[in-house]
Amino acid sequence: MSTLIRQSVQRMTGYVPGEQREAADLIKLNTNENPYPPSPKVGAALAALDGAALRRYPDPVCATLRRRIGERHGCGVEQVFVSNGGDEALALCTRAFVENDGAIGYFDPSYSLYPILADIRGVERRPVALGERFEWQMPAGYAAALFFLTNPNAPTGLLYPRATVRAFCERFPGVVVIDEAYVDFAVESCLELALQLRNVLVLRTFSKAYALAGIRAGYVVGSEPLIGALFTIKDSYNVNRFTQTAALAAFEDEAYVRETIARILATRARLSGALERRRFEVFPSQTNFLWAKPAGIAAKTLFEELRKRNILIRYFPGRRTGDFVRVSIGTDQEVDRLLAAVDSVLGRQTAG
Amino acid sequence: MSTLIRQSVQRMTGYVPGEQREAADLIKLNTNENPYPPSPKVGAALAALDGAALRRYPDPVCATLRRRIGERHGCGVEQVFVSNGGDEALALCTRAFVENDGAIGYFDPSYSLYPILADIRGVERRPVALGERFEWQMPAGYAAALFFLTNPNAPTGLLYPRATVRAFCERFPGVVVIDEAYVDFAVESCLELALQLRNVLVLRTFSKAYALAGIRAGYVVGSEPLIGALFTIKDSYNVNRFTQTAALAAFEDEAYVRETIARILATRARLSGALERRRFEVFPSQTNFLWAKPAGIAAKTLFEELRKRNILIRYFPGRRTGDFVRVSIGTDQEVDRLLAAVDSVLGRQTAG
Repeated sequence: MSTLIRQSVQRMTGYVPGEQREAADLIKLNTNENPYPPSPKVGAALAALDGAALRRYPDPVCATLRRRIGERHGCGVEQVFVSNGGDEALALCTRAFVENDGAIGYFDPSYSLYPILADIRGVERRPVALGERFEWQMPAGYAAALFFLTNPNAPTGLLYPRATVRAFCERFPGVVVIDEAYVDFAVESCLELALQLRNVLVLRTFSKAYALAGIRAGYVVGSEPLIGALFTIKDSYNVNRFTQTAALAAFEDEAYVRETIARILATRARLSGALERRRFEVFPSQTNFLWAKPAGIAAKTLFEELRKRNILIRYFPGRRTGDFVRVSIGTDQEVDRLLAAVDSVLGRQTAG
Repeated sequence: MSTLIRQSVQRMTGYVPGEQREAADLIKLNTNENPYPPSPKVGAALAALDGAALRRYPDPVCATLRRRIGERHGCGVEQVFVSNGGDEALALCTRAFVENDGAIGYFDPSYSLYPILADIRGVERRPVALGERFEWQMPAGYAAALFFLTNPNAPTGLLYPRATVRAFCERFPGVVVIDEAYVDFAVESCLELALQLRNVLVLRTFSKAYALAGIRAGYVVGSEPLIGALFTIKDSYNVNRFTQTAALAAFEDEAYVRETIARILATRARLSGALERRRFEVFPSQTNFLWAKPAGIAAKTLFEELRKRNILIRYFPGRRTGDFVRVSIGTDQEVDRLLAAVDSVLGRQTAG
């Protein structure tokens, strides 16, 4: 081993994001991006941005955007933190709230970045196995310095009821980060917990409902001391000028976001029904993706066959996840092509 | 103390960037920004960017930009890392190359972020005092896991000769990060050391010569194992779509950058002479700022008086730095207004 690189880093393999191939005619349903473009107000705001102003550093504390977020959620600007994508906020939490001998908890399965964040921080992973049907299951007396709770969960798409989450947060001795990346597609949110409980942060993102994965923006809401700790350790100018401008424009255009969400939910219902008619076991999604167990074909084979047909979905190997695929909700046209491809694969499969 | 927040974080105060006031008629010479706008090709590239594409995640590994950087510097794409501003790269180095019982070294004075990065990482600071005239001075046998070496140095503007830096790197047991944020304004670079020595990384930024502080982009060049370690621990999508596009456009327009640099160097010479005629002690700058000891007035007073006149320069309190001011090179017009204001302050001072 090299003596120059930290031992724990040499043992690691980093996070591998879903494939970001950019081919013509590619149907990309593998990273839960929004199939619709961002609000037209984003383009207008960016066009109005003075190019010469790029020579200046951005506002280091994103004051304008944070004030608007605080107003929407009914909290002060000191209770809002803006990050370079949700991932930056998650990583900052591991450095703000976990001592070197602490542990980081999360459900298994959930966002596959969490164990890697524990490795990067060089502290113990303390996963909690979900139930057989991926339902909430928490051992009595479970503790950690930090718990990452994706709600609705990924890759399962399931929503844990707020009452369950509240009861957990109220007795958990460390910080709970409720990662609400997909909450805009769900029937309820846990945001009030971040405003009421001193150990809870809620994380939101502009990558999904706001259709701005390309700009990297997320935000965290919570008690002032926890938010203050994130400010203390963040990079000086973590969010650039474009991102602050684009996020603000998208955030203000609530009507557009609502409309986009409604379209995605309609397509989600349609795709869910269509897969069920093909005897897939589809979990009740509260997100912009479906978690489903194919019928008549192994999940991995389906993933590979679709990939050959220029359709990317997500497959997570492993004991808990290897029988399932995760499919992002695309446009209706994309979903039609997906279903046709699934039929073609299953036909061959049956014939072969 | 809270039991939720890491003890070392509770003891810290974060980095305080130079003031980012945005008032009309403000002369901002406090954060070493470029007084000229970025290349017009940046604006053109951004205008050509498809707004709808913002719904997609950016390229997680910045492949195109890294390839072009590698070509320019004569190294492979695996030897180049692109970061969300130089600061992100510095922070990543503290997590990639320093064990929990390791130490981080840097000169005192140099970039005031370094000790804070050591605090954030929760490891020992191991500063090395520069000589009386801020010249290179290194104790025999000095060691650390990581050494941050700003060259040319900030806030002093002095360049350490490459031969001196090479000799240090060749015998230093840890990783040396040569922070060349200001190298475009200097007569020589240490980039070849990053290509020849396995323990050396060179950091560059788009914030200064390329006039793109607002987009947050920096890059690191060095041996493949060190660069690979940064990739292992970085946030999944650390550099957004705009930033990759803008940085590439600016990087390709070498002629424009050269012209901008030439203008800044001419103004630097003029301001330096003008301050010397006012009996300021001006250090020979190899950067886009001057480090100077005012005559006939305390540095802090000059800073405050200029601030009242809507001119921001930088003042660093402390035993080593408290007698000096750091002045970014502005346009000729800004420098004229600065000099007039200095004369006005000195006049009152003399009268008062």
